[in-house]
Amino acid sequence: MNIKNKHYRTIWLHPDNENIVQIIDQRWLPHQFVIANLRTVDDVCIAIRDMWVRGAPLIGATAAWGMYLATVETPASCARDFFYEECYGKLLKTRPTAVNLKWALDEMLKAATGNDSIIESKWYAKTRATWITDDDVKTNLAIGEHGVKLLAEIAEKKGNKTVNILTHCNAGWLATVDRGTATAPIYKAKEMGIDVHVYVSETRPRNQGAQLTAWELLENAIPHTLIVDNAAGHLLQNGMVDIVIVGTDRTSRTGDVANKIGTYLKALAAFDNNIPFYVAAPSSSIDFKMRDAFKELIIEQRNPDEVRYVQGFENNQIKNVLIAPEQTQAVNYAFDITPARFVTGLITENGICQATEAGITALFPGK
Amino acid sequence: MNIKNKHYRTIWLHPDNENIVQIIDQRWLPHQFVIANLRTVDDVCIAIRDMWVRGAPLIGATAAWGMYLATVETPASCARDFFYEECYGKLLKTRPTAVNLKWALDEMLKAATGNDSIIESKWYAKTRATWITDDDVKTNLAIGEHGVKLLAEIAEKKGNKTVNILTHCNAGWLATVDRGTATAPIYKAKEMGIDVHVYVSETRPRNQGAQLTAWELLENAIPHTLIVDNAAGHLLQNGMVDIVIVGTDRTSRTGDVANKIGTYLKALAAFDNNIPFYVAAPSSSIDFKMRDAFKELIIEQRNPDEVRYVQGFENNQIKNVLIAPEQTQAVNYAFDITPARFVTGLITENGICQATEAGITALFPGK
Repeated sequence: MNIKNKHYRTIWLHPDNENIVQIIDQRWLPHQFVIANLRTVDDVCIAIRDMWVRGAPLIGATAAWGMYLATVETPASCARDFFYEECYGKLLKTRPTAVNLKWALDEMLKAATGNDSIIESKWYAKTRATWITDDDVKTNLAIGEHGVKLLAEIAEKKGNKTVNILTHCNAGWLATVDRGTATAPIYKAKEMGIDVHVYVSETRPRNQGAQLTAWELLENAIPHTLIVDNAAGHLLQNGMVDIVIVGTDRTSRTGDVANKIGTYLKALAAFDNNIPFYVAAPSSSIDFKMRDAFKELIIEQRNPDEVRYVQGFENNQIKNVLIAPEQTQAVNYAFDITPARFVTGLITENGICQATEAGITALFPGK
Repeated sequence: MNIKNKHYRTIWLHPDNENIVQIIDQRWLPHQFVIANLRTVDDVCIAIRDMWVRGAPLIGATAAWGMYLATVETPASCARDFFYEECYGKLLKTRPTAVNLKWALDEMLKAATGNDSIIESKWYAKTRATWITDDDVKTNLAIGEHGVKLLAEIAEKKGNKTVNILTHCNAGWLATVDRGTATAPIYKAKEMGIDVHVYVSETRPRNQGAQLTAWELLENAIPHTLIVDNAAGHLLQNGMVDIVIVGTDRTSRTGDVANKIGTYLKALAAFDNNIPFYVAAPSSSIDFKMRDAFKELIIEQRNPDEVRYVQGFENNQIKNVLIAPEQTQAVNYAFDITPARFVTGLITENGICQATEAGITALFPGK
């Protein structure tokens, strides 16, 4: 997508030095636009763990390029494959829940190991990482093509009045390599001349909605309005939202959707008011082996200080302000699970389906 | 309730000078504990309008003491009653939605006007303001007595394991003169030796949960945990909450509950998981004339900058940090309406009833 009218992906090889991977360091958005250079596997580990990049697809792509950097820094003396396996282990530990991470790393380990020379390993790793990255873009373009039909239908029903979309967190361009998942239909709609407006819920504790989604919509000229997470129910109750589209970190074979904490509340409110609730779910986020998300998924707990503090901008500086008494304790669940019965449908790269085993397997036979 | 083990109400006459009303200036909590002196009607107008005090019952009590200060500052030259009516008008304009405000002011105007001397007006105003203030405490004590039965029942069912309560915003001591409404059963439970723990949702945009509820629970040694508003669904889904108790700004005759934005989402999640959802509703917050809250109530919109900025503490100073792009617009609805069908019951000073016209009028016959 665009920043100041120039096209960017979220991750790319340095144009003048193919031993450096460049990313947008998202920690400073929307206040500062910083490009970071990653030179080593350890750089990549930090970037993923400390959330310079986030979003399942982008985490996968970044890990892939991390394995590529492993081949760049292969020490001449050591057993190469053993070194790659070590790097694989390090990268895998950076974020426990992201399902794409393991998939991307598995692919990359296959590419990097079993070769006759470092040059070959590097070549295969680069090719595979490029494929993983491009494939994400292709997937999101397809999600956009399928999802935009929903928006076009609403626009037609409304006599081409503005289609109001509610989204949560950032399942946008910045969570992927390009286009985003939940945002892909929105960007596509804009390109097709459909009038769209997005309600962006701020998404405490880390405010990815306010900091990232609002920013990427702004840079790409999509009209939008920021709300507190609490306001979603009121909007849905009062006809101000035509459709909810969110992303997912992991969706079970039976259609239960694990996504950023607070998604479930929006789904409940959409259901209570007969507003369609869609989940943009690339197949890489569907866990075809998981039958019961409520039993099988452990909800990651993050640092409680993310709840006790809020990051923002004041006086040209990024600051973390304490919003509670110093001694008050907090708890910080990263995700919640929305039961399939509240999900109108999944928007995948293969089409739109019901959030049921039958719906999912019809689009992904043999899985 | 207590601050550093000393008992305070939220409003009182200066112990050494009865021409001064003292309040806790809540804008600086939990970071600074500031007592403010109010000497004039204009002081009181500022304190209400700029939210030095907030919460419907405390706004009513503060306005009452504002009318008392009108009698203190009666200019000798003017027609007294005309002056009191002018003060009444000023105070009434400070907060448009608070239903107790008008009630308290009507009572005070009756007491202040039609007297033969300033001394008499002052005497009647002081007596009436004292009564209004004390009556609020009595009401909340009664809500505590009734509400604690629900907690005791849960404790018994759980074999005296900790009772987990979820609340929203601040319907606490700080929103009233003492004890609070939603917190009254909790403080009472603590006194009776029932093990309680409170999940405090931060309540964006103004974070009254994080800033006020957490602080008053802390000062009164009630175990509590801060959560982001988004986390309520996950807690309710996973058996971590036994009961939800919230306050209300206005409840209709038919049991629909207007309260801080986000209340409706919590009610939906409680309903979906069969967790009781109670509203502490003193009769002063029940609008006995309102039949259809969805049609009759206009939801106040507040300054969008409350959404775009967050207030907190950094480096020993209170700061407002921007959390979104400078050009991103926001919308800020103050309340939402929870339909009566999601409300398990109302806890009033006259007892607990169903959130229905029959339930309410049985407790308040003739209303």
